[in-house]
Amino acid sequence: MGTVTAPWKQLLLNALESNSHLKHSSFFQLATVGYNGRPSNRTVVFRGFQENSDSFQINTDSRSHKIEELKHCPFAEICWYFTDSWEQFRIGGRIDVIDGSNPDTLKIQQREKSWFASSVKSRLQYLGPNPGLPFISEQLNEETSLDPSAGPVGAFCLLVLDPDQVDYLNLKNNQRVKFISTIRSDGMKSWTSEMINP
Amino acid sequence: MGTVTAPWKQLLLNALESNSHLKHSSFFQLATVGYNGRPSNRTVVFRGFQENSDSFQINTDSRSHKIEELKHCPFAEICWYFTDSWEQFRIGGRIDVIDGSNPDTLKIQQREKSWFASSVKSRLQYLGPNPGLPFISEQLNEETSLDPSAGPVGAFCLLVLDPDQVDYLNLKNNQRVKFISTIRSDGMKSWTSEMINP
Repeated sequence: MGTVTAPWKQLLLNALESNSHLKHSSFFQLATVGYNGRPSNRTVVFRGFQENSDSFQINTDSRSHKIEELKHCPFAEICWYFTDSWEQFRIGGRIDVIDGSNPDTLKIQQREKSWFASSVKSRLQYLGPNPGLPFISEQLNEETSLDPSAGPVGAFCLLVLDPDQVDYLNLKNNQRVKFISTIRSDGMKSWTSEMINP
Repeated sequence: MGTVTAPWKQLLLNALESNSHLKHSSFFQLATVGYNGRPSNRTVVFRGFQENSDSFQINTDSRSHKIEELKHCPFAEICWYFTDSWEQFRIGGRIDVIDGSNPDTLKIQQREKSWFASSVKSRLQYLGPNPGLPFISEQLNEETSLDPSAGPVGAFCLLVLDPDQVDYLNLKNNQRVKFISTIRSDGMKSWTSEMINP
């Protein structure tokens, strides 16, 4: 789907730039809804925008709970607070779960690209034991090694969040702007914005 | 409800202590579920534990969306990432919404206590225009003042999250522990813990 440049994107790029001296500035909290209807919330790492789009990329383990949750309810909300510039972005949208079984060649290529864009150390996590399952100390001793030229392993999963609303709050000047997307008749996504009370 | 001292509480108190030099260490992200079944996520401020309990206090505006959402689905998950010690707490539980119309005298007292515990500047927010509604510039000129001895205004709302599960992750030593509560036959809450894979 085509996209007219999103008006909130420059605000976010500016925040990333002004907080780039902080390692945690690329971390945000991702909320999903569980099977039981209760919300889940965890910290994940921003892996950049999908090429030529406003969609957010996140790498995750296909064995983690959030994958089941997203298959049940594909909607998520990012809450991204920048601790130095005091800016918050709440980004709501639908998540596309791209694992190795995806039938779309282009998506499989994006997953591969995201795998190679992450460090070898990050990639090793996906060879580890099933996240969230009981820890068995023997597993620690299994030394895992990885060929840096090898493609994504089965557990590696790319999440792509396509935003449809963004709520921006600046705590320094106390301004808040709400951005809402609509799909135009030509299939392009367009954005409207409105200043709202903080 | 009585509570045996929660085993995760000391870990959290330690994290608060070791990150206390950072203003944002008392901020966490609170996820709820909206009417439309989609998750919501925003940054809020930790206002301490409720006296003699493991319940988390949060102040909020009764006119904000989260109040409607919590009336529809009272469950929430806190995601609290400590940026200096690299520790994450995911705290799930049920939220009690305490506004001025609450029939329980003890809860009304807790709300009042939380009002006076917050700064006069914080209290002034609750006299401002309806959060989330379109911003009208004239509202800015209305100088609001507040008698510091005056009790909570109508828009002031205390949220109390009573946790039933805590997922603790330490990214420095890569340890993760899951704490689950159960209600014992004598009505006391008790906690079990298990090391799980990160």
